[in-house]
Amino acid sequence: MHYQAPIKDQLFVMRHLAGLDALAALPGFEDAGSETAQAVLEECARYAQDVAAPLNRDGDRQPARLVDGRVTTTPGWSAAFRQYVDGGWQGLPHPPAVGGQGLPKLLHAACIEMVNSANLSFALCPLLTDGAIEALLTAGSPQQQATCIPPLIDGRWTGTMNLTEPQAGSDLAAVRTRAEPQADGSYRLFGTKIFITYGDHDLADNILHLVLARIAGAPEGVKGLSLFLCPKWRFGPDGARGERNDVQCVSLEHKLGIQASPTAVLQYGDQGGAWAERIGEPGRGLEYMFIMMNAARYAVGVQGIALAERAYQQAVRYARDRVQGRPVDGSVRHGVPIIRHPDVQRLLLTMRAQTESHRAMAFVAAAAHDQAVAHPEAAVRAGAQARYELLVPILKGSATEMSQWVASQAVQVHGGMGFIEETGVAQHYRDAKILSIYEGTTAIQANDLIGRKMVRDGGAAALSLADDVRLTEQALAGRTDSADAQAVLRPLRTAREAWQQAVAHVLAQAAGAPAAVHAGSVPCLLLGGLLVGGWQMARALLVAEDRLAAGEDPIFMRAKIATARCHADQVLSQAPALLTAIVDGPAAIAAMPEDAY
Amino acid sequence: MHYQAPIKDQLFVMRHLAGLDALAALPGFEDAGSETAQAVLEECARYAQDVAAPLNRDGDRQPARLVDGRVTTTPGWSAAFRQYVDGGWQGLPHPPAVGGQGLPKLLHAACIEMVNSANLSFALCPLLTDGAIEALLTAGSPQQQATCIPPLIDGRWTGTMNLTEPQAGSDLAAVRTRAEPQADGSYRLFGTKIFITYGDHDLADNILHLVLARIAGAPEGVKGLSLFLCPKWRFGPDGARGERNDVQCVSLEHKLGIQASPTAVLQYGDQGGAWAERIGEPGRGLEYMFIMMNAARYAVGVQGIALAERAYQQAVRYARDRVQGRPVDGSVRHGVPIIRHPDVQRLLLTMRAQTESHRAMAFVAAAAHDQAVAHPEAAVRAGAQARYELLVPILKGSATEMSQWVASQAVQVHGGMGFIEETGVAQHYRDAKILSIYEGTTAIQANDLIGRKMVRDGGAAALSLADDVRLTEQALAGRTDSADAQAVLRPLRTAREAWQQAVAHVLAQAAGAPAAVHAGSVPCLLLGGLLVGGWQMARALLVAEDRLAAGEDPIFMRAKIATARCHADQVLSQAPALLTAIVDGPAAIAAMPEDAY
Repeated sequence: MHYQAPIKDQLFVMRHLAGLDALAALPGFEDAGSETAQAVLEECARYAQDVAAPLNRDGDRQPARLVDGRVTTTPGWSAAFRQYVDGGWQGLPHPPAVGGQGLPKLLHAACIEMVNSANLSFALCPLLTDGAIEALLTAGSPQQQATCIPPLIDGRWTGTMNLTEPQAGSDLAAVRTRAEPQADGSYRLFGTKIFITYGDHDLADNILHLVLARIAGAPEGVKGLSLFLCPKWRFGPDGARGERNDVQCVSLEHKLGIQASPTAVLQYGDQGGAWAERIGEPGRGLEYMFIMMNAARYAVGVQGIALAERAYQQAVRYARDRVQGRPVDGSVRHGVPIIRHPDVQRLLLTMRAQTESHRAMAFVAAAAHDQAVAHPEAAVRAGAQARYELLVPILKGSATEMSQWVASQAVQVHGGMGFIEETGVAQHYRDAKILSIYEGTTAIQANDLIGRKMVRDGGAAALSLADDVRLTEQALAGRTDSADAQAVLRPLRTAREAWQQAVAHVLAQAAGAPAAVHAGSVPCLLLGGLLVGGWQMARALLVAEDRLAAGEDPIFMRAKIATARCHADQVLSQAPALLTAIVDGPAAIAAMPEDAY
Repeated sequence: MHYQAPIKDQLFVMRHLAGLDALAALPGFEDAGSETAQAVLEECARYAQDVAAPLNRDGDRQPARLVDGRVTTTPGWSAAFRQYVDGGWQGLPHPPAVGGQGLPKLLHAACIEMVNSANLSFALCPLLTDGAIEALLTAGSPQQQATCIPPLIDGRWTGTMNLTEPQAGSDLAAVRTRAEPQADGSYRLFGTKIFITYGDHDLADNILHLVLARIAGAPEGVKGLSLFLCPKWRFGPDGARGERNDVQCVSLEHKLGIQASPTAVLQYGDQGGAWAERIGEPGRGLEYMFIMMNAARYAVGVQGIALAERAYQQAVRYARDRVQGRPVDGSVRHGVPIIRHPDVQRLLLTMRAQTESHRAMAFVAAAAHDQAVAHPEAAVRAGAQARYELLVPILKGSATEMSQWVASQAVQVHGGMGFIEETGVAQHYRDAKILSIYEGTTAIQANDLIGRKMVRDGGAAALSLADDVRLTEQALAGRTDSADAQAVLRPLRTAREAWQQAVAHVLAQAAGAPAAVHAGSVPCLLLGGLLVGGWQMARALLVAEDRLAAGEDPIFMRAKIATARCHADQVLSQAPALLTAIVDGPAAIAAMPEDAY
């Protein structure tokens, strides 16, 4: 169950695909050059490998428990959390003005990948806290920022996101939790929130709940929702802990996976109302929550990569150790490690191709975010922002779906041992299933992609992506002496053309045939995922060929080339089938009589 | 968690695709006509729905336990088992001469689908007993058959299959359990067997273990293996229970799924040797075990269908009940059941298409088996046998892989509720994962397909399948006025051509490049699965169009047509990508440096 942080691949992607050096040339990121990145990654790797990773199975076997109204986390969790915040990891991407380190999202992405690989259930707590900090930075008052963000960064507090209610899951318009204004400008909250990750725990002094609620008299629907901060313990202007607030953890869910992450039902206002402050303006709650949610969606996409990496590593280790069967070529007359069997190699290399392609996608998206924040030219910032926003739902949907496939194949490589819980790999299969659900299901990501990121701008961002892919195609076409480049070029071009056709189809049908568009929206998202991933792997191949020719790290570079080509053969090749599902698929779905299901 | 047996679809497939009437015209199956089939299915449905299904979740929450050397099954299990055997279900496919009913495998397939849908963990016990009966019928002495089969059929005994040892999983050549010949012709067994399904339990008076072991002095490898029967309790010639034999259940595995099915580690010979009789000739153990295993592999394929059907039904029910979100076409201004949302429809219809196509594949395979057993003409028998043997690994591999996809999507339809164990759908996701592993992993099925079923006969059986698909293509082409038929024709033809190319590739490369062939063997199996499934759905579409024109059951027939077309759009369309994986994929896999994984 050992975990080894993939620093070499992370640095390769950061330097050669995500433009780390260009980022370090931007104002504010001067300290984030290649050397800093390497030092930060190595330090984070030590934490992830030595502290967080060994606790992962403990968390599965000794989940958080609710006893007498108090939630106790897995033994070792508190100490690991203390090391995390004391190491400065919570503040990594946040502004120095509030106690953070102001490092690029690109660096943060690499770090959260490691911590999530090490221990997904544990890493959820800082993930949610990051979201709360983002929301406060966007919409909080100066007083709220000054009071709340420093303790969130130094780990005295943690943050949560309170959206879901029993009748309001994907459809937040149905939120009923109500906020009653008080004479002093504060509010009292009443209602029930469910599925609240780290909604209660014993890791910190206080918990800051960010709660979506409806002010008495506000309109129906999402326009009537406002955002509130509501702490577990009331606090004074200096943040010092005061009396217990009227919010209670009434139960924890018994889940398929991420057992150690306490998923709480929170009851607000049973004792007269939970004290709360409004964040930002009334009626803009969903807009603010989306800021938090977009950061969280990006992070959940990285969780998919992280989980896939861990499952892949475990499968590789087993495949090296397990001796079973002779080689199919008859080269030796005794059993060999199963990593010598071609089908095991096919599984491992495809798992690796899926993981690395999504890592590249995530890091390139993070770099776009950093450019959008820090680039001096407005046009560059706008273009980078559009690219980032396009990539977030693709990453979240595609990386989480692929993580389930990778986790399942990791079990498969283990054969019967994989099905035995003691082996540990089954945990990844169970944990992975939440990733395509929380922070918006894959279908919700696809709605976001189609509606907000494709139709709203007339396809500009989506087609600009295709233009960039064509540049890579041209570079591949120029490698006339490289069979690998040519082998990747064909499916990449096919996938890019399929994407252009899909975008044209969506734009043409969106107004007149919305049901048909939505019947193909997830295939469209997955097509985007394999195109972006395949594009990045093609870029990686070009770099790796150059470095190999220069004699640099031949094993790594040859592996990168083989992995890129595997991605083309096993993943990119699926593009035409997805286009069929997008364009032709809706007819049968519309023809199915609803009663006949 | 209600389960409704899909009798209507089962009968449709049996009558219109699997040739039930033709079967009933064969000697020995005169009683197995349409009316008998319907009556048997309805009776089995009552058992599955009312007795076995309600215990499924109990089994997950109260698994079998080993306490003080005794295994206790889930409460209710014993009574359900008694009803099963008293209802005659264990004897359904077995010869009347040994107490069975001699009904066709086609009917049995429909029945075991139901019982496995109802309760997969429970159904494993009769599944293994069926295998033991098959092995005894093939290789047992008349005395062994007369003594052992009747109690296996009437439920006084159950059967198990003992192959796996810690060092011998997929590679049975590594089996070490040894058999020492005794003066009276019996043997003493010594060794450890693992992963023994229902290796111990409290459902029956006795358990008959069929054990693969090596007679002292026998050669290394699989040729040195013989098959033995070794009961938990010794018995006399009349089958009456005698003294306790020297085989002990030393532990039960803690598993990801099928919790209620006791998976035992069995220790043979700690007290001087476990009494055993040899079955058949020495050195032919693996051959006999394969008879048992092929029957079991077919049955595990049906388990995949069964689990997919159950998961699909649960997802449909939730989607009808759960109100969330407005329709995308803006037709109403309030929330609707999520089954109205196109993406949920896409998931449900694709799940249905996967389930129905594999059901048709399984039933057509069963009918081929019945023809191979009962047809008066030797040439027909031989052709049918070759078809059956070709389809078994395809069914086992493809249906079990698809069941994992369907179970995962069933959780997905439930959103966050799906991740909560109380909802019950997560159990299917956990249970499904064993199906692609036990009775030979998907890779092992692919080896069987490529080696024994494709290369050995020079591609005859595989290409004969393609010829039959062409006949269906011609029929589709004749439906010039049917847009549905034309929409299915194109991808079916493409998939059939891909299959022919794959077969040609395998035949050309098998001798010279075995590693390359094996790097594409699972994609080849999956291509076979989608071709056979798509072919059957196309045949179903032709029938449904005729019946619809005749005014028969329009909702069912329209659903069948929509499902067939959905299969073409969402599943058959993947054929070219699989061909790429088969033909182009191996190069990258071979290029990957082993140390770089």
